[in-house]
Amino acid sequence: MAAIAARWSSPARLHPLTRRRLRFSASFSSVMAVPASAGFGWADALRVAGDVGRGDESDLSGYFRQVQICNRGMDKKGEFVKFLVEGQVVGYIHKGFVEHLRDFHDVFTIVSGNNGSNTVENVSLHSSLRTPEDKTHAIGDVIKSLGEMIPGIRNELYPVTSSYGMPSYFSLERAAAPYFGIKAYGVHMNGYVEKDGQKYLWIGKRSDSKQTYPGMLDHLVAGGLPYGISCKENIIKECEEEAGIPRSVSTNAISVGAISYMDIEGFRYKRDVLFCYDLKLPDDFVPNNEDGEVDSFRLIPVVHAANIIQRTDFFKPNCNLVIIDFLFRHGYINPDCHGYLDLLEGLRSGDCS
Amino acid sequence: MAAIAARWSSPARLHPLTRRRLRFSASFSSVMAVPASAGFGWADALRVAGDVGRGDESDLSGYFRQVQICNRGMDKKGEFVKFLVEGQVVGYIHKGFVEHLRDFHDVFTIVSGNNGSNTVENVSLHSSLRTPEDKTHAIGDVIKSLGEMIPGIRNELYPVTSSYGMPSYFSLERAAAPYFGIKAYGVHMNGYVEKDGQKYLWIGKRSDSKQTYPGMLDHLVAGGLPYGISCKENIIKECEEEAGIPRSVSTNAISVGAISYMDIEGFRYKRDVLFCYDLKLPDDFVPNNEDGEVDSFRLIPVVHAANIIQRTDFFKPNCNLVIIDFLFRHGYINPDCHGYLDLLEGLRSGDCS
Repeated sequence: MAAIAARWSSPARLHPLTRRRLRFSASFSSVMAVPASAGFGWADALRVAGDVGRGDESDLSGYFRQVQICNRGMDKKGEFVKFLVEGQVVGYIHKGFVEHLRDFHDVFTIVSGNNGSNTVENVSLHSSLRTPEDKTHAIGDVIKSLGEMIPGIRNELYPVTSSYGMPSYFSLERAAAPYFGIKAYGVHMNGYVEKDGQKYLWIGKRSDSKQTYPGMLDHLVAGGLPYGISCKENIIKECEEEAGIPRSVSTNAISVGAISYMDIEGFRYKRDVLFCYDLKLPDDFVPNNEDGEVDSFRLIPVVHAANIIQRTDFFKPNCNLVIIDFLFRHGYINPDCHGYLDLLEGLRSGDCS
Repeated sequence: MAAIAARWSSPARLHPLTRRRLRFSASFSSVMAVPASAGFGWADALRVAGDVGRGDESDLSGYFRQVQICNRGMDKKGEFVKFLVEGQVVGYIHKGFVEHLRDFHDVFTIVSGNNGSNTVENVSLHSSLRTPEDKTHAIGDVIKSLGEMIPGIRNELYPVTSSYGMPSYFSLERAAAPYFGIKAYGVHMNGYVEKDGQKYLWIGKRSDSKQTYPGMLDHLVAGGLPYGISCKENIIKECEEEAGIPRSVSTNAISVGAISYMDIEGFRYKRDVLFCYDLKLPDDFVPNNEDGEVDSFRLIPVVHAANIIQRTDFFKPNCNLVIIDFLFRHGYINPDCHGYLDLLEGLRSGDCS
């Protein structure tokens, strides 16, 4: 616990970071922040989790804080220009990042203002790139050339569309999606158990060797939605790989809605939409990670998970939103709590299309 | 069934009526519209309900149609001006209706443009009305004076706020809320039963003598949210009155989110937010209406209720949205259906605050 710095969040910090003014005036509890190395263990998490009755149940401020953490930098939207494909906006690119694309004349067309200045107006693909394959390969080569400008290459292609379910214009390396402000889609699943009328959530702790968010708390199952696979098939695949859930069980996972956020940091503009799933598991089910990405799992009461979300930054940030959505749908957050509707809307702060 | 006219909805009609362009291109099935007298019986409803396998399950167009029906007249927003109280926008009043308020100099202050024209800019309350009671009484008297301009007076007061949970500026007769474009809040509950892994919804048929939507299908329990009662207490009260559900059972109703819509018709601007509840009922429970507002109840498979929504206008319009929300949360509508995210967003087309 010594490695975890306690800090105070000021209510004033909330305002610019959600789509609308948050009209609640709750006082803030001290929050345990997680350093980059996620220096906490299950013992730390479970201590916070079980410390019930300390706070005011109707105080939603800890949840608002998580919405805020996933929706940073909205005041910096003006630093980005539209990325157009076939006349449709598919993303947003930082003006600084555009400068790194200038050398690739045969891939990108960079339109500047008419007023003699060099102000970039938008970026589109060169007209010589006709087929989706042409575009995919050309941009793939650019991404390779940019090297460490875009870290964490996964060799996983995401479809680029104007909105979900529309035909894909081309495919893009997953790690590059935020640099082009492409919307990315994922599937996140809460696995839960019901015993004697009380609900419990299966929570994973990410492997310390994972490239992103090592050691942090996670859902039972989650994954990006790559090109060419349906949500249902993807959740079944991830259930198998991440938690050893056989198809006979995972086929009972039900879709329950979606959350979205938009997060700007430096040149990166994340625009994520997560399809949310619930899977009610048998009492005696025990998950078993098969791809080495999860260190261990624990089954904890839903109210304990809520405690962790409210008081720490132990969860991978976007998981908080999906669990808050679960809390809404299962009656753990109710309309008599001040800020209910604002928080509900906050779960879809991004372009959810 | 002879009394029910079949009609075709054209996809083109959808566009202006949802907040964003609906990006789906499903073909439309024929829809059974309900005349004002709701000339249909249970036999008609159950015939449509049970006619499964006729349509394409992934075709969401019938649901989009219901969103559209609850969100009419968005192109007429310009005919309304802001209604301000203490500098906050609490509603919108039609310019034509403002003319009927001009005689009440000591109640309303009507601000016109500076350009010499008589264009109304906004309406506020006269500064002499200081306390909430002053305002409530003064506007109550105006509403009485207007007589048949505002039909269906219920003698039920709604709180007037800028958003839910904020202090009330004054209280307003429920029937008058749409004439002042005041946001109105309600609680709607889906009562369901689970047998052998299949879910069933309890559906009510409104009394033929009910003032609004006589004879139409309805939730098990629903009601407006009057001044001075919490959502939880209201749902418990309505459970008792509308369906004879004792407190020992209704206390298990869980809040699951909210839907919203905004509907313009003539001078009326409805801005409703409905808090949604689910109540899982025992297999052997049978509802019993105690206030004479419901003719009868039936328990039908959820997929049958979905059929009725998709193919008819038998449900009271806003009930469709609350059941569609249920369909989302219980996995009956899934992300692999074209238009999933648009429909999900469509359920909160109104100002949900």
